[in-house]
Amino acid sequence: MDVEARRTEAWGDITPDAARRLVIAAVEAFAERGYHATTTRDIAGRAGMSPAALYIHYKTKEELLYQISRVGHLLSLGLLQEAASGGGPPAERLADAVRSFVRWHAEHHTTGRVVQYELDALSVEHYTEIVALRRQSETAVRSIIQDGVRSGDFDVPEVSGTTLAVLSLCIDVARWFNPDGRRTPDEVGALYAGLVLRMVSPAGGR
Amino acid sequence: MDVEARRTEAWGDITPDAARRLVIAAVEAFAERGYHATTTRDIAGRAGMSPAALYIHYKTKEELLYQISRVGHLLSLGLLQEAASGGGPPAERLADAVRSFVRWHAEHHTTGRVVQYELDALSVEHYTEIVALRRQSETAVRSIIQDGVRSGDFDVPEVSGTTLAVLSLCIDVARWFNPDGRRTPDEVGALYAGLVLRMVSPAGGR
Repeated sequence: MDVEARRTEAWGDITPDAARRLVIAAVEAFAERGYHATTTRDIAGRAGMSPAALYIHYKTKEELLYQISRVGHLLSLGLLQEAASGGGPPAERLADAVRSFVRWHAEHHTTGRVVQYELDALSVEHYTEIVALRRQSETAVRSIIQDGVRSGDFDVPEVSGTTLAVLSLCIDVARWFNPDGRRTPDEVGALYAGLVLRMVSPAGGR
Repeated sequence: MDVEARRTEAWGDITPDAARRLVIAAVEAFAERGYHATTTRDIAGRAGMSPAALYIHYKTKEELLYQISRVGHLLSLGLLQEAASGGGPPAERLADAVRSFVRWHAEHHTTGRVVQYELDALSVEHYTEIVALRRQSETAVRSIIQDGVRSGDFDVPEVSGTTLAVLSLCIDVARWFNPDGRRTPDEVGALYAGLVLRMVSPAGGR
């Protein structure tokens, strides 16, 4: 599947078609101009719809941001939880988590930026819900690291600090990733999985 | 020196006082609402000045963003170059670079976000200049890693990929750092320096 197909696939579960088109248009507009500089009229225009038609699906601009943020967080949380609950040894599960989380942020870098940089624009209620999803992502990665420390496969200076660094490294791919650059999403995923395993390996354990 | 003093210190070289106040007001406005949603009138208002007074110092909003971006990049480049040219062994220089680059992004996280997320809003000419400064930062870190690989102190899967990951890890501190959170800028710097040394250490070398 090419990158473009994977990109729109992220929104595949949003129905009807008009709502999905609005979400895709909103992601692009927010990424280009920022949430606060974008109007619902801009978004409707990009989706080839009237502002009234937008209003049928989303009452406010914030509802669109929330939808984008919720779907983005749920999808990436799903990848991390799948990796965490895999049957293999901790190193295999951690590498798997990093590879898929990185790939997601590379392929969906535009969505990733909107999701990460516009959190403050969410309503208090929506923000609280999204923060809970972020905590679950953290828990998924922390559980793999903890398993590895317990089994002696890993040795880290501090479990929560290492979890934070691993997630941060992967998320920041959305900032710098360039689809015309020298590395594919898979290549960045493989590189980062290797670097993260080095972070958690006991001295002499590689 | 407390965090607040360090924060305004970043702009200490900008004179006269009115220009400095405008830069500080612009950083806050851009961080809160995004570059495109901010007007020069907003910035002047925050600085307690009239739009006409702003115009004496900065002809356009883009000039303010450029000033912020240039000073931010020059300061953090200075820290990296200082670390790179230190006399110690590669591990000491790399730890030093990570510690000060992380500390900068934690203390100046608001500026860091503006600088990193609004690059696309710069004019072509200014963007080109800023990209050249970013390349120099990359070169400073890469040179330390290369020295370590040459001396056998480091062993990395790929010098340029590792350089990218180290810089990315430090820059992303600006996104998540919370001055009311559980870690001080120094503590994050120490944690990250340790994790980065693990990334570059030869197997059994720690």
